[in-house]
Amino acid sequence: MPLEQRKLLTIVTEAALEHELVGEIERLGAHGHTITDARGKGGRGIRNAGWNLSANIRIEVVCTAETAHAIAAALRQRYYGNYAMILFFSDVEVLRPEKF
Amino acid sequence: MPLEQRKLLTIVTEAALEHELVGEIERLGAHGHTITDARGKGGRGIRNAGWNLSANIRIEVVCTAETAHAIAAALRQRYYGNYAMILFFSDVEVLRPEKF
Amino acid sequence: MPLEQRKLLTIVTEAALEHELVGEIERLGAHGHTITDARGKGGRGIRNAGWNLSANIRIEVVCTAETAHAIAAALRQRYYGNYAMILFFSDVEVLRPEKF
Repeated sequence: MPLEQRKLLTIVTEAALEHELVGEIERLGAHGHTITDARGKGGRGIRNAGWNLSANIRIEVVCTAETAHAIAAALRQRYYGNYAMILFFSDVEVLRPEKF
Repeated sequence: MPLEQRKLLTIVTEAALEHELVGEIERLGAHGHTITDARGKGGRGIRNAGWNLSANIRIEVVCTAETAHAIAAALRQRYYGNYAMILFFSDVEVLRPEKF
Repeated sequence: MPLEQRKLLTIVTEAALEHELVGEIERLGAHGHTITDARGKGGRGIRNAGWNLSANIRIEVVCTAETAHAIAAALRQRYYGNYAMILFFSDVEVLRPEKF
């Protein structure tokens, strides 16, 4: 079974950014993404402590290291100052590399 | 604290496959799985762009490398041609290996 | 782009523990966490097979290895005997280490 190395970039941020971030991610060369609704706490304090239980999102992008770093750099420059956002990278192996 | 190496297999696919995939995963020897609803875009185009916000699922299975590869091989053979599906593997350490 | 190593600790457990676990995680030094609703099957049998589709949660904590191990040790001691719970660790790189 042929496996290839890729990066998994996980972004946790404010749900209001979803549409905009998806556009950035695609523009920077990722071929796909997966979004789940989330809640939690980060540097900006508790999110969704009350009634609004889905105001954070968790976006995953499996792509080359170059694309992952390009996306992270763009998001850092554009959103880190003004939005709650964390980013982390991990190494993954993919089964169908031509998809990423 | 005793830690042991396992594989985390993550499958992102169409929600309609949930029941069937859970059966396959168990048949192939995994002792558990975690499912979250997701949306996103992959090789088959945008999913859930409109009203249907839970039509993808993200399945995680923590298991031995052998089981992870057996599940991936079976899913590739049976579903890759006809369904939107991505699979990726990562290395994890587990706290209670007897569960996996 | 400066990247630093951290641990990603993923906890999958019963939704009823959410508030209590968040308190433990913060007390043990994590600066943030992300929670998503989940369903699945583990050592305790099928969860949410019927109408209750959100009775499991998946908690992610990105933190130092020391903090991740301290959280895992505390949860193992306090909850493993009486609750459905799995824990796993993976290595991640973070973009903004001061947040974790």
